[in-house]
This record gives sequence, C-alpha cells and structure tokens, in this order.
Amino acid sequence: MNTYFAVDIGGTQLRAALYAAGETKPLAQKRIPTRGKDQTAVERLIDLLKSLWPEDHRVKAIALAAPGPTNPRTGVIYSAPNIAGWTNLPIAKIIQDEFKVPVALGNNANMAALGELKYAAGQGYSHLLYITISTGIGGGVIENGQLLLGHQGLATEIGHISVMPNGPVCSCGIPGHLEALASGTAIARYVSEQLAAGVPSSLGQIVSPTARDVSQAAEQGDPLAISALARAGTYLGHAIADFLHLYNPQIVILGGGVSRSGMHFMEPVRSSVAERVMSKEYLHGLVITTAALGDDAGLMGALALARSLDEKP
Amino acid sequence: MNTYFAVDIGGTQLRAALYAAGETKPLAQKRIPTRGKDQTAVERLIDLLKSLWPEDHRVKAIALAAPGPTNPRTGVIYSAPNIAGWTNLPIAKIIQDEFKVPVALGNNANMAALGELKYAAGQGYSHLLYITISTGIGGGVIENGQLLLGHQGLATEIGHISVMPNGPVCSCGIPGHLEALASGTAIARYVSEQLAAGVPSSLGQIVSPTARDVSQAAEQGDPLAISALARAGTYLGHAIADFLHLYNPQIVILGGGVSRSGMHFMEPVRSSVAERVMSKEYLHGLVITTAALGDDAGLMGALALARSLDEKP
Repeated sequence: MNTYFAVDIGGTQLRAALYAAGETKPLAQKRIPTRGKDQTAVERLIDLLKSLWPEDHRVKAIALAAPGPTNPRTGVIYSAPNIAGWTNLPIAKIIQDEFKVPVALGNNANMAALGELKYAAGQGYSHLLYITISTGIGGGVIENGQLLLGHQGLATEIGHISVMPNGPVCSCGIPGHLEALASGTAIARYVSEQLAAGVPSSLGQIVSPTARDVSQAAEQGDPLAISALARAGTYLGHAIADFLHLYNPQIVILGGGVSRSGMHFMEPVRSSVAERVMSKEYLHGLVITTAALGDDAGLMGALALARSLDEKP
Repeated sequence: MNTYFAVDIGGTQLRAALYAAGETKPLAQKRIPTRGKDQTAVERLIDLLKSLWPEDHRVKAIALAAPGPTNPRTGVIYSAPNIAGWTNLPIAKIIQDEFKVPVALGNNANMAALGELKYAAGQGYSHLLYITISTGIGGGVIENGQLLLGHQGLATEIGHISVMPNGPVCSCGIPGHLEALASGTAIARYVSEQLAAGVPSSLGQIVSPTARDVSQAAEQGDPLAISALARAGTYLGHAIADFLHLYNPQIVILGGGVSRSGMHFMEPVRSSVAERVMSKEYLHGLVITTAALGDDAGLMGALALARSLDEKP
C-alpha cells in the first residue's frame, strides 16, 4: 500500500501523520514538543518520522507545513521565528537525504488554504482566499486550482498590507499593517489600551485579557469587547474588499482563533466588505465563511501537497 | 501563411493590426475613431477588421484588448466606461460569429502586462507585476508565466486598494484608493489645490495643468511640481511594497504617461518601496523598471493572446 506523510511544524510542537492513498483518516499520528534536551528540532523531526515509519507500506512522499516564510520551489525555510537556528534551512533536502523519499514544503497558511480547498470548506472551488486570524494574520490564495506562490514562494503575506498609514507598528516593523489592527494580538492590545484609559468593561477583572477573553466577553454583551471585535472586523473587511480587487476569489474562508468569535466579528467583516467593494460584480456568488479544519488545517494541506507530489510526472 | 489579428479598443479610437506567425511587425494596421455617424462601435470594429482581412492568408485567431473590466473566461465586457451601450457585451461571441475564427478577450492593463512579458521589458521573467499610471491606475500580474485573472477575470485591479482611509474619493466611488492619490488625475488635482491655496509655482500660468504639465515643470525645477510627483511616487511605492507581499514578483514594470516623468517620480517610488517592504528577501534580485512598449502595449499583448489561443489544444 502507498502511504504519505504530512507534517505540521510549529514553534511548540511537531505533528506528523501517516495516510493511506485516498484516505483522510491517518493510519498513525503523533505529536511531540519541538524543543527537547540535547536534540535539535531537525533531529527531533527525523526521530518523529522514524517512529511512525511504516514497516509494511511504501512511503511515496512527505510534505512539511512550516511556520514562517518558506520557498516551496527550493525547499528552504527562510526563517521560523520560534525555532532557534532555523534560518535559510534547506529542510526539504535534509529530510529527503535522510529518508530517500520526495519531500515538499509549504508555509502553514498556504497549507491551510490547500487543506480547506481539497478536504473542507473550499471543496469544489477553483479561486479561493484563505485568511487565518490568530496571533498574526496570514493567508493563502488558490488561483485556478493552484496555490499562488510568487517568485520565491513569498506571495500572499496578506497580513502585511498597509491599512492605516502611520498606524500601530506591525510585528514585521512596518507601521499600519492589517496584522497590527485586526489580529488577536491587536485586539488584545486595543482592549488593554481602552481599559488603561478608563473604559468600563468586565474585562477589567482579567490581567492582560487575550483575544479569546475578548471574544467570550463579547458573547456576554460586554460593550468594550463588542467594539474591539467590530473594530478588528471592520479593518479586516476593508482589507478583504481590497483582496477581492486583487485576487477576485469565489470564496473567502476565515480561519484561526479570532474567526471563531461569532457574529460580533463576522457581521462587521461582511458589512465592511460590502461597503468598500468597488463593483457588485465582485460579490456576485461570493461566499464568505469560516474554516472547517481548525487545528488540522496545516496537516491536511500538507497531505494534499504530498499527494500532488506523487501525481507529478 | 497563418496570421493573427490584434485589436486595441479604446474610448476614442479602435486599432487593429494583422501579424504573420512569428512576426511582431504588422503586415497591415489601421486606426479609426471609435465613434462614427450612423454606426455603433461594434459595427465600426467589424468594418475595421473586414478592411484589413487578408485575401491570401488564413486568420487563425483574433484577440481584443478592451478598455475596462472584462471576463476573459466568457468573452464579455462588463463595462467600457467611454463607449455608449457597452455593458455586459458578449464581444468575443459577436466577433467570432461574424468571422468564424477563435476570438479571445482581455482588459487593456492585462494585455499590456502580457505584451511587456512576451515582447519587451518583461522577457525572460515568469513572475511580473505591470502597473500603468495615467488617467487611472491599472495593472496585470503574471504568476508562473500566466496572467492572474481570478474567478471572473476581475483580479489585479491594483489601482483600487486603500492607501489612505477617508482619503480622496476614487473614480470608483470608494475613498482613499491608490488611483485617487497617485494617478495623473490625482497629480493634476493636487497641483490645482495647492495653486488655489496660494503655493507659488510656474504652473500657475497654465489653466488646469495636467500631469504632463507637472512632469515638464518638474524637469525645469519647479518645487510644487517636484513635490507633487514625489507625493504620488511615495504613495505608489508604498502600494508596490504591499504588492510585493501579495504577489512576490521578480520584476515590476511601470507604464502609462506618468511613468515617463523621470527621476522626480521614479526615485520616490524606489525609496518608498525600500522603506515599506517587510523583508529584504522581497528585494533580492527585484527589478523595478519602466515599460518599453508605450502606446503599443495593449496591441502587443493582444497579439500574444491571439497566438496563445492558437497554441491551445
């Protein structure tokens, strides 16, 4: 039997799963911490794959979802912010040399887009925009059934477009990016600022409230929490209107923790998209929905990528 | 001999040229006004093609560059702002029914991108961003050798991204779009506002100075003209930085009248791209240059499209 490995590399944990051809339920899977005593993250990744390596089946391909900018064309991770020493790391070649099996690489937001396309909310579409809103904002675009990668695989860094010149500084150092205004981090920062300014809220009882706390308080009707989600959702909606003009997708899928904040987030997103779109043609048949794969999105995308590798001539 | 028709449809004139296989110098060409007495623009287009139709050669394909949003997948022009009655016009089918030859359609900015890619400044590249800056701002993106079209062919409307919330209203009605801040129209408007506010300038002698007047005054050292080009170039540079994050091209080609404004425009573009890019990886080997085809860009792109049609199975 032919099998495929999908691996989701995170700053805190490494997940690997082995799938039979045509199946989406893994034959075996395992997760381990990314950091360990006396071992590099690469060594731990290799050990993880060895521990799951099937004795009776052939492994046709391995695909890796990496946390951070990667070049899928060369198999190099440019940087993985939370893994020490992973800068310009030729991870695909390292794993390929070790296991003598084709290895492919993609960044986790692109892999999540591919996972939703092949196995979940994006099935049946050929032009898709996936946006993940959690600590940061990332995304992936499917154009005519294919991931839009750009020259070095660095396209669709959609958290890093300017939505407010001279706005708050983004994690990347540039002021006013979408990520600095609509990510979970941005929501938490805005709430902290408002609390410090004396705005009354049930969130005042929590030390350093997170975006998740804000989401829960909004469900309880807290006005500050509701306004914080509306603010983030409005900025995101304006950016989505721009993305419609730039990518013209059939479906927009929102994933990541913040996307699960319910109507207090999704309604401002929808209304601000409608407000800022230049022509109603872009909205004709457009679906805006939430992701279906949750925590498994990166892994499922890697599975799709591993299989596509096998299908190539 | 096999031949191909390329047609550039404009609000003021219709241009058609006939090319032999493998040639970029036309066998015959002609331009006529788009409007005429007792004739619709469609009738004039058909007459134009008939007048150039070769007696001795076979016409393999016709491609049309259209002014305004079009759907290349269906061959429909959504709207041509300056041609009366051209709304949801199935132009490809009309021309195909008339001449019994395959007909393809693209918008003029996409055709210009394709023209530069195949025959001019973009030759040898596979990931390209073309931006035309004239009355408005339009563009085209080549991803992996192919035009990025989106679901309905409405992608890469790159003049219509927000660069200043609540900024000047764009031609499309949305406030703060790039086109409202960096197009020729925007440059002319800014200069008029500054003159009205009493800013001294040699442009004060001209009634309603155009972007071309501004460009010429800048060459003569006029401070207002120089600052107007710098302002537009800076906004464009910021937007290009965003486009690098979104499309990750190898080359950015600037076309249209404003792109010929020289260093007073291009230097602010380059420096503001460098200032706003999130990672130097995006600048690695990046070329930012001006278009080579000028007025012929749309026609040459249509030629490339007509030939690609013939190559399809």
